[in-house]
Amino acid sequence: MTSTFTVLPVPLDHLFSPGDDINSIVIEALSTTRWPDESTGISDGDIIVVTSKVVAKAEGRVVEAASRESVIDQQAERIVAVKHTPRGVTKIVQTSHGLVLAAAGVDASNTEQGTVVLLPVDSDASARQLRDHVIDRTGVAVGVIITDTMGRPWRLGVTDVAIGSSGVHVLDDYTGRHDDFGNTLEMTVVAIADEIASAVDLATGKL
Amino acid sequence: MTSTFTVLPVPLDHLFSPGDDINSIVIEALSTTRWPDESTGISDGDIIVVTSKVVAKAEGRVVEAASRESVIDQQAERIVAVKHTPRGVTKIVQTSHGLVLAAAGVDASNTEQGTVVLLPVDSDASARQLRDHVIDRTGVAVGVIITDTMGRPWRLGVTDVAIGSSGVHVLDDYTGRHDDFGNTLEMTVVAIADEIASAVDLATGKL
Repeated sequence: MTSTFTVLPVPLDHLFSPGDDINSIVIEALSTTRWPDESTGISDGDIIVVTSKVVAKAEGRVVEAASRESVIDQQAERIVAVKHTPRGVTKIVQTSHGLVLAAAGVDASNTEQGTVVLLPVDSDASARQLRDHVIDRTGVAVGVIITDTMGRPWRLGVTDVAIGSSGVHVLDDYTGRHDDFGNTLEMTVVAIADEIASAVDLATGKL
Repeated sequence: MTSTFTVLPVPLDHLFSPGDDINSIVIEALSTTRWPDESTGISDGDIIVVTSKVVAKAEGRVVEAASRESVIDQQAERIVAVKHTPRGVTKIVQTSHGLVLAAAGVDASNTEQGTVVLLPVDSDASARQLRDHVIDRTGVAVGVIITDTMGRPWRLGVTDVAIGSSGVHVLDDYTGRHDDFGNTLEMTVVAIADEIASAVDLATGKL
């Protein structure tokens, strides 16, 4: 099964603050989309991908940078690795969400100077809430993915991955299926939602 | 900077064997492409993504499955981790290419039963060779990425990543650049080529 798809960046043109109505902002932005085939808006099966940064800001997950280290320790259920560098201490931790990542996802970019942004409390719930709203307002059966940016052991560079979703098949399990040669696939479970997050990052960029 | 892009699967409809002329097979397949905007063929800036499986087969990197364990040991420059499971021994190794992955990338799927496929000897060289051929034959300035499928520590599921490329900016380094709030980005180097590999895997699937 192969299928063509298009990734379309949707500029929100909005600096998010605690209390912002992300639902309305996304709905309004979606109405402006224009696809390569000249169609507009959204269609059944489309997936709306939103960074955890804007979701977290709208949910008020912004704190003073001075509290960064203590916030990371609060967010960490388990310390996986600690590295001392000339620029400070980097901690790889496991969060209450089950994510393993640097600094518990606490991030100082794309936020007011002197502040840092935490991850959303429950990105699956945030995705579900946005999805329900879009379906309710438009009648279009979309999925929603909320992303964060992570490094990978043994690979250079960061990629975007899914940390929350609703209405999306996040893992595609091929185990037990057969290839054209009659071999049974034994290990192949594809991280669809992570691949979608990465695809969208290509279209949007970091700035 | 944001930009829309489309991923278009290009069926090769060919079972690759040692000695196959992958250049001609790819060129012929590319001529059949039809994009959502009704344009056809390839354009400057397009990126051709090919799995390492077909490249390796065309290059004759197929061996008897009985030699699998000894081949993995030959391909491994360093053993990173070994795990004994009910299904056998899984080794995470570093290959001569510098890749760290399970079983040195030696794979038993999508190949004749009783055989396994190694990684290409030099995927950058394979990518360069294909790119040079496409540019020579068509005059279109494409890039080429050769992919493999890998698991990730701490994440469920596998994703496709780039193990070779030519004419592609594989890492996008944001360090030293500033966001809208005047913060200097200090850590952000995006693995563009890996994100492209993942995007294409969504369109093609594993079977």
